[in-house]
Amino acid sequence: MTKVPLPQRFLAAGTACGIKDNPRTPDLALFVSEVSCTSAGVFTQNRVCGAPVQVSRTRVPRTTTRAVIINSGNANACTGQRGLDDARWMTAEIAQRLDCPPEDVLVCSTGVIGRPLPREKLAAGIPVLMELLGSDPHAFLEAARGMMTTDTVPKQAFRTFELASREVRLSAVAKGAAMIGPNMATMLAVILTDLHLDPRTADTMLRQSVDRSFNCISVEGHTSTSDSVILLANGASGVELRSEKDSRQFQEMLDGVTRELAQAIVRDAEGAAHFVTVRVRGTHSPDQAKRIAQTIANDVLVKTAITGNDPNWGRIVSCCGRTGVELNERDVTLSINGTLIFQAGSPAEYDEQAVRESMSRGDVELDVQLPFGDASVEVWTSDLTQEYVRLNSEYTT
Amino acid sequence: MTKVPLPQRFLAAGTACGIKDNPRTPDLALFVSEVSCTSAGVFTQNRVCGAPVQVSRTRVPRTTTRAVIINSGNANACTGQRGLDDARWMTAEIAQRLDCPPEDVLVCSTGVIGRPLPREKLAAGIPVLMELLGSDPHAFLEAARGMMTTDTVPKQAFRTFELASREVRLSAVAKGAAMIGPNMATMLAVILTDLHLDPRTADTMLRQSVDRSFNCISVEGHTSTSDSVILLANGASGVELRSEKDSRQFQEMLDGVTRELAQAIVRDAEGAAHFVTVRVRGTHSPDQAKRIAQTIANDVLVKTAITGNDPNWGRIVSCCGRTGVELNERDVTLSINGTLIFQAGSPAEYDEQAVRESMSRGDVELDVQLPFGDASVEVWTSDLTQEYVRLNSEYTT
Repeated sequence: MTKVPLPQRFLAAGTACGIKDNPRTPDLALFVSEVSCTSAGVFTQNRVCGAPVQVSRTRVPRTTTRAVIINSGNANACTGQRGLDDARWMTAEIAQRLDCPPEDVLVCSTGVIGRPLPREKLAAGIPVLMELLGSDPHAFLEAARGMMTTDTVPKQAFRTFELASREVRLSAVAKGAAMIGPNMATMLAVILTDLHLDPRTADTMLRQSVDRSFNCISVEGHTSTSDSVILLANGASGVELRSEKDSRQFQEMLDGVTRELAQAIVRDAEGAAHFVTVRVRGTHSPDQAKRIAQTIANDVLVKTAITGNDPNWGRIVSCCGRTGVELNERDVTLSINGTLIFQAGSPAEYDEQAVRESMSRGDVELDVQLPFGDASVEVWTSDLTQEYVRLNSEYTT
Repeated sequence: MTKVPLPQRFLAAGTACGIKDNPRTPDLALFVSEVSCTSAGVFTQNRVCGAPVQVSRTRVPRTTTRAVIINSGNANACTGQRGLDDARWMTAEIAQRLDCPPEDVLVCSTGVIGRPLPREKLAAGIPVLMELLGSDPHAFLEAARGMMTTDTVPKQAFRTFELASREVRLSAVAKGAAMIGPNMATMLAVILTDLHLDPRTADTMLRQSVDRSFNCISVEGHTSTSDSVILLANGASGVELRSEKDSRQFQEMLDGVTRELAQAIVRDAEGAAHFVTVRVRGTHSPDQAKRIAQTIANDVLVKTAITGNDPNWGRIVSCCGRTGVELNERDVTLSINGTLIFQAGSPAEYDEQAVRESMSRGDVELDVQLPFGDASVEVWTSDLTQEYVRLNSEYTT
């Protein structure tokens, strides 16, 4: 595990307060800035959403945010008024210790849904968490661990770059979207930078970046009740964006970090045996490309074919046809791992055994070329294995 | 197996001509009327569709249809101009023997896609098929067998009713939508009646019936390239619809037959362990209800929970939230097999063990009640088992 540093004047901590069955498994994470931050957030579009989402999304964008408190093991979703009270209480507990209004603290929860939060355990854990706050990579890693549910590894990403001869840092953590058990597992990410950003720019850049990263992954096409991505920019580097070029550079950094985390989430999906990249090119619009790519990525028959290392072009071409996009099979050209499989409506001649062998190595790239325009998109997904079904069906509450 | 009769003046036959790997497995079916029929058809909405769909859908509705020729083992899809020539040739071979124009013959194919039809095998099989034509239940059953691909049992349904003191018969066959191997398996149905129908009525009634039956089933949400439902009405009973009441009675019969076949298809889905009914009530429109019901029915997490006999309301309530229909969890009430599980936003108190036991018996009914209006819908699906994944991933070409 490489050591991932925090940006300047950020602190982090992680600990266990006993929310999960094993009382030693980390279940609390805290990110604090020593100075006010510009914050932005992108949240689940599921109409059924957790109390923390309902609370946090009213508190961004803002210029005075100080912290994000996260618990795992309990999503605090479908918990009614009590859930809202509990989410606000969590932020107030942190705010009191940071001497700021509760509105300057954001909250995320992930885990089982429909169960009230164990307030007494959190009340005991929060002071410990405050004590553990540190600016070192170890503290940051512990925070990454405190967010995990079914993830097998903590997920962090880091970029550093120079602007105006000063170093700017961008550090991020995420937890995965693999689904297991009775809980709707959730994708959470916290992105920290010591760049100065105004709220509108932060919001715009974060949305654009999420659209190109976390919105391009799908394990089973199910949007959870709690998905949240939060960006905090505290300006401690003394650097701000002064030109178009600066903005482009930062957007690239941000996109790099979010794509790295998004792909790490798919690679860590429960019970997956293949990492699948679906590229669709040559549509009229990016939306069309995305609709086709996501139909392929979420198709149970495409996924199971990939599990079997089978270059099953019929299932993929048929997906292209069932999205509502006006096309027929003569418009579709498909390559798998660089080998042309289907060209403009007809199966190509290719070495099937060689394609199967390349698929069996674990990374599968599906390239769909259409003749309509210049738009393109790339999405990432995993396959569908017997192990996935076992994990998702045999777990009992 | 009960013996299912044909309506008056219909003939049927089934045989094997060697399209499939095992040359004795039936792969040809033929339905013939001794007199001209009114025909109607509903076909796949997938833009990538087989040559037989492209040919047949230009030939209905019509008043002079005489036959439907069907082969299994090869879908004749993604086969270009040659595929269209082959499909037209099949109808011409039958038409020549019935002394009618090729346009009065319809054609369906189901099986592997992307491979040219073996014309010489069909040319040898068609005369045999003509010889075998019979009006008895045995001939009808052989035709049902000739359509099968991964089905484990032939699927037939029958109704008889009196109008104007005369007997009218309605007989139907279908093959299933379970998916396996490199072929996009297909849902085909042929419905025969000796009632007289005019083409507009036949078309309207068939569309309405398909909407309430075959469009309400889903194994994995994938529309195949070849789905076709064909209705032939030859008027041989001498009965026609003379009143609103007559029409209602016939629509009910038709709906009964199509629902019976649709449910038989789901019950025979490859690798399924549960038959699942999803009912959604209380929406503004039937479309809204259907959108929610199909999101639940196609959700991989809901399916795997059912496989594990787990009354996992979180996954179901979350599906309600991710359809784009304006609602929150306080609008949702859910029962599973008649037991109230989730009421207006909160988990209900219930005997989980008893619900698990009732689910383990194989039939699962999910009832979602919403408070918005009077619309409702019912859809049927199967669960997602390790066996399903095995079948769909381990098959090799």
